[in-house]
Amino acid sequence: MIPLDGRSPQPLYEQIYQYIKDEIRSGKRRAGERLPSTRMLANHLKISRCTTQMAYEQLLSEGYIESVPCKGYFIAGIEELVGLDQEPAPGAVFSREEEKEDCQVDFSLRGLDLERFPFNTWRKITKNTLVDDNKEMFAAGDPQGEYGLREAVGNYLHSARGVHVRPEQIVIGAGSEYLWLLLAQILGRNRCIAMENTTYRQAFRVFSGVGMRVEPISMDANGMSALELEKSGADIAYVMPAHQFPTGIVMPVKRRQELLAWAGAGQERYLIEDDYDSEFRYKGKPIPSLQGMDPAGKVIYIGTFSKSIAPAIRVGYLVLPEKLLAVYREKAGFYASTVSRIDQNILYQFMVQGHYERHLNRMRAIYKAKHDALLEGLKSLESQFEIRGENAGLHVVLTHKGGRAEEELVEQAKRMGVRVYGISRSLIRPEPGRFTSTVLLGYGRLSPDEIRKGTKLLEQAWL
Amino acid sequence: MIPLDGRSPQPLYEQIYQYIKDEIRSGKRRAGERLPSTRMLANHLKISRCTTQMAYEQLLSEGYIESVPCKGYFIAGIEELVGLDQEPAPGAVFSREEEKEDCQVDFSLRGLDLERFPFNTWRKITKNTLVDDNKEMFAAGDPQGEYGLREAVGNYLHSARGVHVRPEQIVIGAGSEYLWLLLAQILGRNRCIAMENTTYRQAFRVFSGVGMRVEPISMDANGMSALELEKSGADIAYVMPAHQFPTGIVMPVKRRQELLAWAGAGQERYLIEDDYDSEFRYKGKPIPSLQGMDPAGKVIYIGTFSKSIAPAIRVGYLVLPEKLLAVYREKAGFYASTVSRIDQNILYQFMVQGHYERHLNRMRAIYKAKHDALLEGLKSLESQFEIRGENAGLHVVLTHKGGRAEEELVEQAKRMGVRVYGISRSLIRPEPGRFTSTVLLGYGRLSPDEIRKGTKLLEQAWL
Repeated sequence: MIPLDGRSPQPLYEQIYQYIKDEIRSGKRRAGERLPSTRMLANHLKISRCTTQMAYEQLLSEGYIESVPCKGYFIAGIEELVGLDQEPAPGAVFSREEEKEDCQVDFSLRGLDLERFPFNTWRKITKNTLVDDNKEMFAAGDPQGEYGLREAVGNYLHSARGVHVRPEQIVIGAGSEYLWLLLAQILGRNRCIAMENTTYRQAFRVFSGVGMRVEPISMDANGMSALELEKSGADIAYVMPAHQFPTGIVMPVKRRQELLAWAGAGQERYLIEDDYDSEFRYKGKPIPSLQGMDPAGKVIYIGTFSKSIAPAIRVGYLVLPEKLLAVYREKAGFYASTVSRIDQNILYQFMVQGHYERHLNRMRAIYKAKHDALLEGLKSLESQFEIRGENAGLHVVLTHKGGRAEEELVEQAKRMGVRVYGISRSLIRPEPGRFTSTVLLGYGRLSPDEIRKGTKLLEQAWL
Repeated sequence: MIPLDGRSPQPLYEQIYQYIKDEIRSGKRRAGERLPSTRMLANHLKISRCTTQMAYEQLLSEGYIESVPCKGYFIAGIEELVGLDQEPAPGAVFSREEEKEDCQVDFSLRGLDLERFPFNTWRKITKNTLVDDNKEMFAAGDPQGEYGLREAVGNYLHSARGVHVRPEQIVIGAGSEYLWLLLAQILGRNRCIAMENTTYRQAFRVFSGVGMRVEPISMDANGMSALELEKSGADIAYVMPAHQFPTGIVMPVKRRQELLAWAGAGQERYLIEDDYDSEFRYKGKPIPSLQGMDPAGKVIYIGTFSKSIAPAIRVGYLVLPEKLLAVYREKAGFYASTVSRIDQNILYQFMVQGHYERHLNRMRAIYKAKHDALLEGLKSLESQFEIRGENAGLHVVLTHKGGRAEEELVEQAKRMGVRVYGISRSLIRPEPGRFTSTVLLGYGRLSPDEIRKGTKLLEQAWL
């Protein structure tokens, strides 16, 4: 059924891959449809099974098909494929300014308040770092990151997040995407990773991109379903207990314990705790990290300075359980650090001189004022919308009680010059009847006045 | 034959993996020995074939076994496994200073002359970058790297290395290891990559670590054998035409054309040109890059500022052929840049203000003086040693004509307080009778006086 040309310069496996891919993209094959086994297809085409396996592997790695262990291969959800195509091109960052023009208020999920960054302090530290007797700053550094910085990060994590950590367990790296990629090398790609549906799309793309099998797990009001996790066959679970992205769910202690129990039941099971915006919590005592609740060393902790300092400084950190340290050294210890030694030293000074803590406290107050302005402004919408995910992080979640479609909400807001973001982009597998009427509003970059203007416009758009 | 415990918390596939791994490590299984097929083993153990496949995948990814397409699975060479164990632990960077104590002259392959780095210029540029109206430097930047920097790198590559490049083709990243990892995401891990035997070990570890099949290809005097490459079944070839590491071979134009012809014969074939130290050439005109000889867009070019500026600044670049740009955007365009925007701007200013070129010219003269001192000092050894790889880069290659073992040469030097480095660490598969009496001498960090002292001591050690 697949026309093969043995004389073509294109290898046979590629011809098969291309043919099936075209059929999927053109819609001839529907999501959920089962593909013949690699053996059957090989017999049918009178070619080697290796060839069909290579073709399927390629389709798998690009997300066109899914493999269900011991059941076979299935066409992946088309909505998902469409979603992938809608991913913004990297060039899009240039057009951000243009986009803003036809938009009065952008509740962007990425924006941060950089106005309040202690620029002078940063500059002064930089100047002091670049003094003549500091030339060794330019020599190659420690692959895990400078020891002093790891110590400072460890102290901060211990006091602010209750993380149990020795500096030896910390790996400094250039941002979360890189650290996920590094982590995938440490864990090995033959892993099945459970992710919350919805989740952080970039993380999904990294883990599936390296070849890990991703199992989307539904969430209830407390986060990832422990029951579904147990059934999924996954041996890694990626969660954001402090403030799930995008739903904003804060995972209660009981669910945390269920997840820890799940991890404890398998020698190679691990939880990845992505604590991406835990610095910002506006009500009550912060819940300590999942890692801090775990005496058994089953939690891999990931954090970043992208939100708490600035995205452009490109520094994040991984806290590995003791058991994984040897694996890290064997499999990934040879990766040179991705953060310049000079930058590491600047950040180190910023932390040990107490600027980081002061900056965080200042920013927490600033973001709380924005948060309060937003919640106040959204009051009039409460009759028609459920508002969730508040009191932490830099965004809130609005669900239309009457089931108005996400696209319509986004479009109605847009017509009034306001940009809000649909949650469906964060789905890694469609969930019938859920996440269809929900939008996200980020407020990190906006001033309280802009926020008030935005909510007034939304009122006009939606009520 | 493999004892399985269905009630153990360890999954079955892991028990199989662990059992076979232990057998290999303990020497019970010999290199080249064939393993039963996954189907046979599954039938025999009365378990699912998925389970045996997962076990084999894990053994494959850790390099304990090799897969020969359509032939089966074989135990990998034991020597190779030993080699992997000898990899220095990441902690080793701390002990560098101690090691130096009992060593008078260290012909390290990593060292660079950082004394001559234009520190004041760098500091001044940094100061000017961190001015108040430059706050946008802290916002998220372009995933590919700042456009201005890419333009500057493109201009440099065009004039200095004859690379044909638009800024749109360049991806800036935090060092070579990261860029290899990113490239593996772009090319897909279901690739077979040919590498020169011997080659740059870090690159080998990255590519095999992500699951690519690596085919070691023997070299003749002109570099990678085109004949062996053709036979290997590889579709990617990783080469260092300007100055092969570690052999120092400069690939002549004829061999380059053979490799380009090989790449041209398959739609998905590519050459990776790692131009890691091409900035330093001391005799004759520099041979332009392989990329510049290729009108067909079959060469992926990689370079770094680690040697030409400093390892600690962590900046390298990838030049993608036009055809791979769309693939990059689809598969890896969402990876945020790993280099801080501030650092990119500093480097950009350093380049466009002409400092980079001046620095390179100065360093070329300095390294040439060191190179000449070394070659002069090695004259007395010429009767017993063949000296190669000179006139370019930052190291030379010495082979004992009488076949004295590498370990003995290293040990004899060590006893006189001199550190030299055996070439065998760079082998990715043993080659009987080759690379057994060869050592490498790096001279980047040493002064001409230290070099002269070192060669005198080597004379006493070896003659």
